[in-house]
Amino acid sequence: MPSLESYHAKLDYSYAPGFFPSMEALRRRPELVRRVLLHSRVAPGEALDQLMALCRARGIRTETADRALQRLSGKDNCFVAAVFEKRQGALSPRQDHLVLHRIGDKGNLGTILRTALGFSYLDVAVIRPAADHFDPHVVRASMGALFSLNLSVFDTFEDYRAACPAHALYPFMLTGALPLSEACRTAKGPHALIFGNEGAGLPDAFKNLGQAVRIPHSPAIDSLNLAVAAAIGMHAFREAAGTL
Amino acid sequence: MPSLESYHAKLDYSYAPGFFPSMEALRRRPELVRRVLLHSRVAPGEALDQLMALCRARGIRTETADRALQRLSGKDNCFVAAVFEKRQGALSPRQDHLVLHRIGDKGNLGTILRTALGFSYLDVAVIRPAADHFDPHVVRASMGALFSLNLSVFDTFEDYRAACPAHALYPFMLTGALPLSEACRTAKGPHALIFGNEGAGLPDAFKNLGQAVRIPHSPAIDSLNLAVAAAIGMHAFREAAGTL
Repeated sequence: MPSLESYHAKLDYSYAPGFFPSMEALRRRPELVRRVLLHSRVAPGEALDQLMALCRARGIRTETADRALQRLSGKDNCFVAAVFEKRQGALSPRQDHLVLHRIGDKGNLGTILRTALGFSYLDVAVIRPAADHFDPHVVRASMGALFSLNLSVFDTFEDYRAACPAHALYPFMLTGALPLSEACRTAKGPHALIFGNEGAGLPDAFKNLGQAVRIPHSPAIDSLNLAVAAAIGMHAFREAAGTL
Repeated sequence: MPSLESYHAKLDYSYAPGFFPSMEALRRRPELVRRVLLHSRVAPGEALDQLMALCRARGIRTETADRALQRLSGKDNCFVAAVFEKRQGALSPRQDHLVLHRIGDKGNLGTILRTALGFSYLDVAVIRPAADHFDPHVVRASMGALFSLNLSVFDTFEDYRAACPAHALYPFMLTGALPLSEACRTAKGPHALIFGNEGAGLPDAFKNLGQAVRIPHSPAIDSLNLAVAAAIGMHAFREAAGTL
């Protein structure tokens, strides 16, 4: 492997910065991990021993790389990072989906992925343009949830729909016809919860796709934060299905 | 008023950075706004006209302050900021409360305040040590929700309890005895939802206070993001009460 570069979208590898995300990479997708970077001042102890044991068991190289870690973490301290190969996932036609339409913010995307794993939405469609889910900031914000999910990127919503034509669609919109508490009880068989961009939401045309849903809230705010809305939506659908 | 300083906790004023948070300050708490800072390159248009009209109607001074805005916003662009007086709120004994125990992250705190306004938890207790809710980052993350809430800061949870002894307490804990879907149906009369620090959660002793609540999630994650957990909790209690 050549020397490490700062992350950019065209690289075929990325970084899982931090101890917890690196452990998730090693536990869930060891076949993707190319090597593990350690800072010369990483704290010895049980956590590090566990990480080293996992690397040994899988034949994954570790190396001291203070400069690469410094570049990766900016002002945050980062003493460990797994270097992993980027690989596109494939959505399961039988599982429920989470569809993220043009999500721009890396922190939002990471938080949503962590919540998706927490509520067992393991199949996630990302519709472009979107934040790069392999970006180290997203990996960190997801707490490594990325490595337990099937993520698939599509250029348009139509491309997603062509690949998965059978899912019942639930676009979340401020003007959605059904409140969440009713909409979540109508789901039978595989469904897809669809959330739009932080600022713009979903385009108006989405209200004619499947069953548009609104999360009722006080008129004192314009809208809920996107990661918050997605979490409330996933929670309600799992709760209604009795699968929490 | 002397020349403006970079924000720090000991100042008796703070900044609402951005157009939307500044408008919220002017609309909800005009009596707190000392002046409004404008960048010399602020875009003319309807939004600016509205802001200027509000300032005129209230006799609030506007001034061009490029350097102060630059200092305030760092690498983000910020063309407007309201300078507002920090004033402690008082909790209502008859309303439901949100209690935030030792929340450290400014972004989390801001997001939670926005959600609290969205679900009409207008009375918020902040237990120290905590992120400073007057910090411009929090004000911005809250989208100005701060100006519609009653926030009160306490040095300890016992101080809060002494001030508000009658509220039914619902501490949210990973080991909470009742799942959220049941706990939210037990609330009669004023209640307080209690959330703990991002990393440590609530101290163990809180499980003996009132009714401890857990939000069921997959064992694939350690915990939900704090702002996400708080949102799911507030939503469920409002839903169960039929007040959404």
